[in-house]
Amino acid sequence: MPYISFDGPKLTKEQKEKLVKKLTEASTSVLSMPKEAFTVVIKENDLENIGVAGELLANKYKK
Amino acid sequence: MPYISFDGPKLTKEQKEKLVKKLTEASTSVLSMPKEAFTVVIKENDLENIGVAGELLANKYKK
Amino acid sequence: MPYISFDGPKLTKEQKEKLVKKLTEASTSVLSMPKEAFTVVIKENDLENIGVAGELLANKYKK
Amino acid sequence: MPYISFDGPKLTKEQKEKLVKKLTEASTSVLSMPKEAFTVVIKENDLENIGVAGELLANKYKK
Amino acid sequence: MPYISFDGPKLTKEQKEKLVKKLTEASTSVLSMPKEAFTVVIKENDLENIGVAGELLANKYKK
Amino acid sequence: MPYISFDGPKLTKEQKEKLVKKLTEASTSVLSMPKEAFTVVIKENDLENIGVAGELLANKYKK
Repeated sequence: MPYISFDGPKLTKEQKEKLVKKLTEASTSVLSMPKEAFTVVIKENDLENIGVAGELLANKYKK
Repeated sequence: MPYISFDGPKLTKEQKEKLVKKLTEASTSVLSMPKEAFTVVIKENDLENIGVAGELLANKYKK
Repeated sequence: MPYISFDGPKLTKEQKEKLVKKLTEASTSVLSMPKEAFTVVIKENDLENIGVAGELLANKYKK
Repeated sequence: MPYISFDGPKLTKEQKEKLVKKLTEASTSVLSMPKEAFTVVIKENDLENIGVAGELLANKYKK
Repeated sequence: MPYISFDGPKLTKEQKEKLVKKLTEASTSVLSMPKEAFTVVIKENDLENIGVAGELLANKYKK
Repeated sequence: MPYISFDGPKLTKEQKEKLVKKLTEASTSVLSMPKEAFTVVIKENDLENIGVAGELLANKYKK
């Protein structure tokens, strides 16, 4: 604890490594806690499962 | 923002299109915000990963 | 199950009643399940706790 | 309702059966509610998508 | 990690103590991990913010 | 979208401003998306509602 949940699109492993490292550094610099306290979970979502403005991103980006 | 998370079973793409459209319309009609403000994320779960009353739905529906 | 989580701003009780009713109706019309199967949880967030584009909404709306 | 979300690693079906059963029993013994009221959703995450202390578990456990 | 999120009604401190203890014990008995690995977060929700079958629990329980 | 949820302890407004700014900067540097695409929601939890290793943090920190 704290626990950071990141909901976004599919990512490469390199992006995940950087994201976890940077989100943790950002958090430790604001809260006075060691990095060991932070957990990040990356939730990858298919564009078919994300809707913005009532439309699936899978359809929006095909146009 | 707002952010709607929908946790349920596997859906077809057509169901996802309708769900995102209708959840967004339902929300805009209640809050005075444009549809562009709303994000919907559909989380599809295997019946093996959902438990109700202490039993996996995967087992319950096999009976 | 299914479970709908709605993360947004503070709402009046009347808005909550309408939101829960409409989100449930929208969902039952897409999935072939009775309305009793659906749970909606409304998460009200202070504008000080929501950030868009790196800025708190509490600050953005004050300008 | 209540709704329990369990975010962890990949599990076998047998582990899921036990987990759902035991989490529900633990909850009913504390809250005065029948087991039918409880839903558990198990979220399985790849070790590549979990970061602790700024490092992916996929990398940490390879060492 | 793992991370257990419990969404339910208001609880007493004694209930929270028991719930965290029992959910953690249930989890450690199924996964081969020490109890130190588990975090539980209890999310207390007003009955005005929970809807089942399209109706707020705050209204349902008043009847 | 993407959507970042930060579950942690109570924070000051200044901490929230920094946290939202830094988490967004960290994310934009890894994903090729403008900062306007990112939403951060900070979930503040009472120490009485967080359990680690089966014990409430409210009790652990009192010792």
